[in-house]
Amino acid sequence: MAKTISSDSVGIVTPQLIHFDERLELRSGRIIEQYDLMVETYGELNADKSNAILICHALSGDHHAAGYHDADNQREKPGWWDCCIGPSKPFDTKKFFIVCLNNLGGCAGSTGPSSIDPKTGKPFGPDFPIITVRDWVKSQARLADKLGIDKWAAVIGGSLGGMQVMRWAISYPNRLRHAVIIAAAPKLSAQNIAFNEVARQSITSDPDFHEGRYYDFDTYPKRGLMLARMVGHINYLSDRAMRDKFGKDAIEGSFGRDLRSGKLNFSYDVDFQVESYLKYKGETFSSQFDANTYLLITKTLDYFDPSVDYDFDLSKAFVESQCKYLVISFSTDWRFPPERSREIVNNLLKAEKQVSYLEIEADQGHDAFLLPIPRYIEALRSYMDCVAEELAPGAANAS
Amino acid sequence: MAKTISSDSVGIVTPQLIHFDERLELRSGRIIEQYDLMVETYGELNADKSNAILICHALSGDHHAAGYHDADNQREKPGWWDCCIGPSKPFDTKKFFIVCLNNLGGCAGSTGPSSIDPKTGKPFGPDFPIITVRDWVKSQARLADKLGIDKWAAVIGGSLGGMQVMRWAISYPNRLRHAVIIAAAPKLSAQNIAFNEVARQSITSDPDFHEGRYYDFDTYPKRGLMLARMVGHINYLSDRAMRDKFGKDAIEGSFGRDLRSGKLNFSYDVDFQVESYLKYKGETFSSQFDANTYLLITKTLDYFDPSVDYDFDLSKAFVESQCKYLVISFSTDWRFPPERSREIVNNLLKAEKQVSYLEIEADQGHDAFLLPIPRYIEALRSYMDCVAEELAPGAANAS
Repeated sequence: MAKTISSDSVGIVTPQLIHFDERLELRSGRIIEQYDLMVETYGELNADKSNAILICHALSGDHHAAGYHDADNQREKPGWWDCCIGPSKPFDTKKFFIVCLNNLGGCAGSTGPSSIDPKTGKPFGPDFPIITVRDWVKSQARLADKLGIDKWAAVIGGSLGGMQVMRWAISYPNRLRHAVIIAAAPKLSAQNIAFNEVARQSITSDPDFHEGRYYDFDTYPKRGLMLARMVGHINYLSDRAMRDKFGKDAIEGSFGRDLRSGKLNFSYDVDFQVESYLKYKGETFSSQFDANTYLLITKTLDYFDPSVDYDFDLSKAFVESQCKYLVISFSTDWRFPPERSREIVNNLLKAEKQVSYLEIEADQGHDAFLLPIPRYIEALRSYMDCVAEELAPGAANAS
Repeated sequence: MAKTISSDSVGIVTPQLIHFDERLELRSGRIIEQYDLMVETYGELNADKSNAILICHALSGDHHAAGYHDADNQREKPGWWDCCIGPSKPFDTKKFFIVCLNNLGGCAGSTGPSSIDPKTGKPFGPDFPIITVRDWVKSQARLADKLGIDKWAAVIGGSLGGMQVMRWAISYPNRLRHAVIIAAAPKLSAQNIAFNEVARQSITSDPDFHEGRYYDFDTYPKRGLMLARMVGHINYLSDRAMRDKFGKDAIEGSFGRDLRSGKLNFSYDVDFQVESYLKYKGETFSSQFDANTYLLITKTLDYFDPSVDYDFDLSKAFVESQCKYLVISFSTDWRFPPERSREIVNNLLKAEKQVSYLEIEADQGHDAFLLPIPRYIEALRSYMDCVAEELAPGAANAS
C-alpha cells in the first residue's frame, strides 16, 4: 500500500551517486584520487540557474534532507530537515532548486572510511584521510560546477552545517548570494573539544574497534559508538528540554511514586526514562552509523577555525566575502550558545557585512535547529521569500 | 627525609578503622549485617563534646580530608579539603574536633563492593546493596554515637556532601547546630542523571567489567572507568575554566601556530591539551578507584530527593529541622548551578528557617568548592568563627 504523503512534502525522492575523477588535494596535504558524492535534489533549477540552494549537513546528517525514499514503507521517517524543505515551506521547492549531499568521509553513500579502497580492495578504515570543512566546501564547489551552478542563491546549514556556510563565504566569495548560519560557532570551545575527545575515546577504546579495521573482523564498536552518541544527545538537548521530556513522568512523577511505593529498582537497571531514552538512541545510532566517520567528523569539528589564516581575527576572514548573512541562535542551546553566534555576528559587522541576527526563544537546546519552531520557521520563510524575490525576472536580470 | 609541613597543616594523620556490629537496615529493605568505617579526625574533642564537626565527602572523596599520611613521601598530596581544614583555617583545628569518614560503599577502607563478603570469602561486587544518602547519614549517626557526640556543632559538605548535610538536618534535627551546604542541589536534574547513566554504561559495557565480578578475573574495567571520569571532569570544570586552563596554549595558541605551520596531526592522536589532560585524569583515576563503588555512588546521587516523603514539597521536609543553615554556590558551576542552591534556600525560607546564602563569583565551575578561592574561604571562616563563639564557656552553657 502506497503511503499518504502530505501536499507540502517533496514526496518520493531518489538520491544519485555522482562520480568525480579529479584528484582532491586536502588541507592535510593528502590526496583523494577519485571519489563519489551521494546527492539529493528537490525542486527545479531555473533557466538562468540562479535559484539553487545548497543545504549543508551536520555531524550525523546526510544527503536525505527531505521527503521519502520508499513509497510503501509506512513507518519510514522523512528526511532530516523535512520541516523546512518542500512546497510552501521556508526552503520552498516551488521557488528553489535545493541540493543536499552526503559529505566526503560520510557513511551514507559518499566516499568515506567504510568505502572500498581500490588499491587494496578493502575498506579504507583508518587510512582514510582526515577531512576539514575547507575540504568539504572544495568538494561541494566541484559539485556545483558539475551541476552548472555558478552562484548559489543561498548556502544554508545548522551546527557543523553552519561552519560550512562560513567557509563557503570565505573561500568562494563570488559563488553565493546569501549565507544562512544556524546554531553554529566560529570554532569549538575547549569544552566542545573535550566532549568530542570523550566520544573518540569511547570508540577507540572499544575492543571491537580493532584500530579502525573492524570491517575485516565482521564487527563494529557498537558499545563505543553508543556511548559517543549518548554524550552527543546530552549535548544536543537542553537541561530544560530533558526536564520537559522526562521530568513529569520520570523524575518527579513516577520516581516519587516509585520511591513511596518502594518500586525503585535499587539496582543498576534503568530507573528513569531519561536513561532508557539515551540508551535507546545510542543503540539505534550505533547500528546505523560508521564509527570511523564519527571519529573523522569530530576531528573536522575540532579543526574548524577560519580565523587561523587571518591572524586569528575572524573579521578579517570575512572581509572579502560578498554575500548577505542571516545568523540564528537558540536561547537554550548550550553546545553552541547564542554568545557564539554573536561572536560571528560581531565579526561580520566589524568586516562591514550586511547581517541579520535572530535569537529564538526555544526550550529544545541545540536540536532546536531541526525542529518546526513557529518563530524560527517564520523567520526562515520571511528571509527566503526575500531571497526568492531577487530571482524575479527583473531583479534577477538586474543583479 | 621527613617532609616540611607548613604550620597551618594538621600534619601527619592516621586513619582508624571502626567496626560496627549492629545490622544496618537500608532504604532498599536490604540489610548489612556488620561493617567497617574508615575514619580520620583532626583537632581535639572538648570536654562537653560540643565542638565536633562532621565533613561529608562527595563522589570521589574519602576520609582523608586534610594533612598527610606519610612523613617521608615528598610528593604526597594533602587531603582533599586541606585548604579548609587546619589550625587557623576556616575549619579550625584549634577550635573544632573534625571527623571525616569514607562512606559505606566506598573503596578507601570502609565496607564496600570491593570488600570481602564473609559469607563467600570473595568480594561483594554487584551483590553489595545500593546505598542511599539516608543510609549514609544513618551510619554516620552511629559513628557519632560511638564517638560520644550527641550533637555536631556543624555538618558540612560540598556537592553530594551537601546532600548528606540536608539529610542530617531532616533525619536528625536535634543532632546538629549548623548545616553548611555547598555547591549542592535538592535533587539531580534529568541532565545530571543522563551524565550518570553515560558513566554507568561506560563501565558496565566494558568487557573487563564481567558483570561486576572483575575481581575474580584479576582485572578491572579500566577503559570504562576512564571514560566515566572524563565525562565527570567536563562536568566539574566550567567552560570558562577549560578555556583558562587550555585556551591560550592549546586552542588559540599552539592550535593556531600548528595550523599555520602545518603541524596539526591530521590523525586521531591528541591535538589539544584539553584532550591529553582529560585522558590523563581519567586514566589516573581508573587505577585508583573501584568501578562498583563508582556505579553505586552515581545511583546514590540519582536517588537523592528528600522531598519524596513530603508530597514533593522540600520546604515541608525542612520544617522539623532545628539547625541554622549556610548555603553556598558558585557562579560558573553548571553541574549544580546557583539556581539549584536557591531552590534549597527558598524552601528553607518557606519553612521559616534561618539561612545565609552566598553566591561566589568563581571561574572554576563545580570544582570551585574544593579550591582556596579567597572570598569563599573568608566566608567559611567568618561563619565558622560564629559557630565557634557559641562554644565559648558562657554561650555553650547557655545553649
